[in-house]
Amino acid sequence: MAKNEQFVSQIADIEQDFPQWYTDVVLKTKLVDYGPVKGTMVIRPYGYAVWENIQRELDSRFKAAGVENAYFPLLIPMSFMTKEAEHVEGFAPEVAVVTHAGGEKLQEPLVVRPTSETIIGHMMGKWTESWRDLPLRLNQWCNVMRWEKTTRPFLRTSEFLWQEGHSVYDSGEEAERETLNMLHLYEDFAKEVLCMPVLTGRKTEKEKFAGAVATYGMEAMMHDGKSLQSGTTHYMGQNFAKAFNVQFTDKDGTMKYAYTMSYGVSTRLIGAIIMTHGDQRGLVLPPPVAPIQVVIVPIAQKKEGVLDACNALADTLKNAGLRVKVDDSDNSPGWKFNEWEMKGVPLRVELGPRDIENGVMTVFRRDTLEKSELPLEDAAESVKALLKKIGETLYEKAKARMDGRIVTAKTLDELLDGVNGGNFVRAGWCGCRACEDKVKEYAQATARVMAKENTEETCVTCGKPSVHTVFFARAY
Amino acid sequence: MAKNEQFVSQIADIEQDFPQWYTDVVLKTKLVDYGPVKGTMVIRPYGYAVWENIQRELDSRFKAAGVENAYFPLLIPMSFMTKEAEHVEGFAPEVAVVTHAGGEKLQEPLVVRPTSETIIGHMMGKWTESWRDLPLRLNQWCNVMRWEKTTRPFLRTSEFLWQEGHSVYDSGEEAERETLNMLHLYEDFAKEVLCMPVLTGRKTEKEKFAGAVATYGMEAMMHDGKSLQSGTTHYMGQNFAKAFNVQFTDKDGTMKYAYTMSYGVSTRLIGAIIMTHGDQRGLVLPPPVAPIQVVIVPIAQKKEGVLDACNALADTLKNAGLRVKVDDSDNSPGWKFNEWEMKGVPLRVELGPRDIENGVMTVFRRDTLEKSELPLEDAAESVKALLKKIGETLYEKAKARMDGRIVTAKTLDELLDGVNGGNFVRAGWCGCRACEDKVKEYAQATARVMAKENTEETCVTCGKPSVHTVFFARAY
Repeated sequence: MAKNEQFVSQIADIEQDFPQWYTDVVLKTKLVDYGPVKGTMVIRPYGYAVWENIQRELDSRFKAAGVENAYFPLLIPMSFMTKEAEHVEGFAPEVAVVTHAGGEKLQEPLVVRPTSETIIGHMMGKWTESWRDLPLRLNQWCNVMRWEKTTRPFLRTSEFLWQEGHSVYDSGEEAERETLNMLHLYEDFAKEVLCMPVLTGRKTEKEKFAGAVATYGMEAMMHDGKSLQSGTTHYMGQNFAKAFNVQFTDKDGTMKYAYTMSYGVSTRLIGAIIMTHGDQRGLVLPPPVAPIQVVIVPIAQKKEGVLDACNALADTLKNAGLRVKVDDSDNSPGWKFNEWEMKGVPLRVELGPRDIENGVMTVFRRDTLEKSELPLEDAAESVKALLKKIGETLYEKAKARMDGRIVTAKTLDELLDGVNGGNFVRAGWCGCRACEDKVKEYAQATARVMAKENTEETCVTCGKPSVHTVFFARAY
Repeated sequence: MAKNEQFVSQIADIEQDFPQWYTDVVLKTKLVDYGPVKGTMVIRPYGYAVWENIQRELDSRFKAAGVENAYFPLLIPMSFMTKEAEHVEGFAPEVAVVTHAGGEKLQEPLVVRPTSETIIGHMMGKWTESWRDLPLRLNQWCNVMRWEKTTRPFLRTSEFLWQEGHSVYDSGEEAERETLNMLHLYEDFAKEVLCMPVLTGRKTEKEKFAGAVATYGMEAMMHDGKSLQSGTTHYMGQNFAKAFNVQFTDKDGTMKYAYTMSYGVSTRLIGAIIMTHGDQRGLVLPPPVAPIQVVIVPIAQKKEGVLDACNALADTLKNAGLRVKVDDSDNSPGWKFNEWEMKGVPLRVELGPRDIENGVMTVFRRDTLEKSELPLEDAAESVKALLKKIGETLYEKAKARMDGRIVTAKTLDELLDGVNGGNFVRAGWCGCRACEDKVKEYAQATARVMAKENTEETCVTCGKPSVHTVFFARAY
């Protein structure tokens, strides 16, 4: 196993240097590469295939919920940004600006969309004449740009890919309900497709989206105990409707401002997967999003019948809808094992002359690192069942970690100890900004989400009565 | 039919004012709307659903051919653009430029990609070390920007959506073969999915892609006899490999420059569909890309059992993989007929009490405007067969039009008459730029593609021996 050790040594130690482990893994597995402009990334085929699987799974859920896809322009007039006061304050510092086009200086600078509430608000204002036109529920899959000082592939890049859903309703109740519905859609998606447990809840005023009345988020615990914001939904009230004149004639004949909401997840989810499930050997990809779900490694592949049997098995599995690869390269089986373990393929099948003779295959689970034998007969059914099991196991393992690492703090020192220990810290909060800021200053931790119920008695900072119970954590 | 007439009158006469017909159709059917920045478009759900169907069909063909998807950054350093001399000359005048980001002036201006040969060339140079890494065949689905003076939705907009495929090979022969393979893939796709016949062939030097050795195109004849360039493939030789240092160690151990090629189609294809198949009533969508393939209009829908029968039929058809809508709105059947005819739904099913009693449905073909009866039994099979037939009929009709409107010219006057009559004109050409320019000046026609064989004796302009037979046409 010298080769194995050599291989593993190419990836930094996951416990000793998690940031370097992350960088090693994303580059060496060819998920991503750095683009020529600082802060940009190139999503390579192996990474993009994960994104395509995320897109397909999420898109079908949106469509089942009645949301339609559309596409809005990349460039937004600078004047749009300033129409909603909080929005411009939040986004203006990080936009990229087109000042010249077609060989001329533009009369008005154009912003490369950091998010599309403004331009979509503008268009929706044109489309919503009557209450009959509502609700209007649109989504777009696109690129957005936010100029960031410190960047890391998938987690924070100047440009990233995402979906942004935007809906208009004739009542605030409905818009708010949709904001929670979409949060739950994300939560289910995270569990069922990414095998990733999340905490969901409302964000504090400090952490909410610029221009929203209320932001809800889902937060996932990474291997190092830090939190990654993995998706957000925003209830805008009439803020954007008033800024962009989204009005409609209601049933009573009067003109009213509509209510809007929005929601989004991004290629950041790929980072979430990596840091939730990864281990010392590299990636561990959840079966629903793995570009290759099963890799078949021939043993003694030069022997007659071995490759044929591998290809026949691959065809059987592919016909059952699985994503399968036969690695018939010239590399040794040991090299192949390491390679596909690093790349996080959920299930490896080894098939050699003896297996074929005995009508079995050797299967290796990437999640538990366990080897076992399965009959070749009914392989499609047994492999499907095993992949399902692997997904469940990944979820349970991550869930146990998160549950085991939520601690409660009564004081700032306890909170600091908690986050230093790689935990999410549950604590009371009086609701004032100064106390929230103090937590950040004292423990470099932020309010991730507020719990549904206030279970704590006093504010972790000032000791006054607690108004919200908050999950604090260090975050990406 | 007063209502029908009133409805039709909302669309300009297709024969009298085709440009206005086009604008009326794209706006009234809600395929698209104008964006707030001049020259930009918003692709509305009905239009975007067509694009999604195009994407799905084309993407599966790319993947079957072994091409992998990836994503490269939107912003390209200005210095990249200047590395390939012809490329910068062709694209620099129409790029949009980001000069400021994150609140600061950038050290180097960044170009919003008009196409990605440069940035992909740069990355491929990092990835191709050995002949073992080749070929490398990537594609991306993304937005691009070319600042245009005169714009029209789908046909020419500042921003549009497209796919761009880029491949690297270790030999020119292979790269050139792939250039032709992809042209044929596009041609098959146009025929089978868009039901659109095309002429394919090599472009002249004047019309080729900026930086290519050779460009091949597919051209489709629109309703007015003008040509629409609907897809192009480019053989780059070593032009971009040398500009971006795409080298590899060959089997003989020496470093060599690679050979590259690229290919793309865009949302322009939606314009092509509209102008190939549309008629006085509006859109006529090919069944493979129609967002709604079958609309079911209940007759006497308040009568007991009618809506139930319509919904049951819809379920049967949906389960067979068809895209179906039951229009159970309060509008009259006549209003619905007009609406869905304008929106180009390939097949309308009318189902009323008498039909149900007789176990039949009335079907109306959008392509031939013919009504007939089909048994409700085995509806999925008969409707599928009919949709296939509609697609074939659309293709045959467009093919007959194109074939019937290709004329031959020996002189510039004949060529002028030909294009004035809404034809593609086949003519000899000596191969010199001056003669090609003269055709443009005299007849406002351009060389669309060169025929495979030179069948003409003399150049249409100068009368010298013909070197290429060229299809000239006025073009969008």
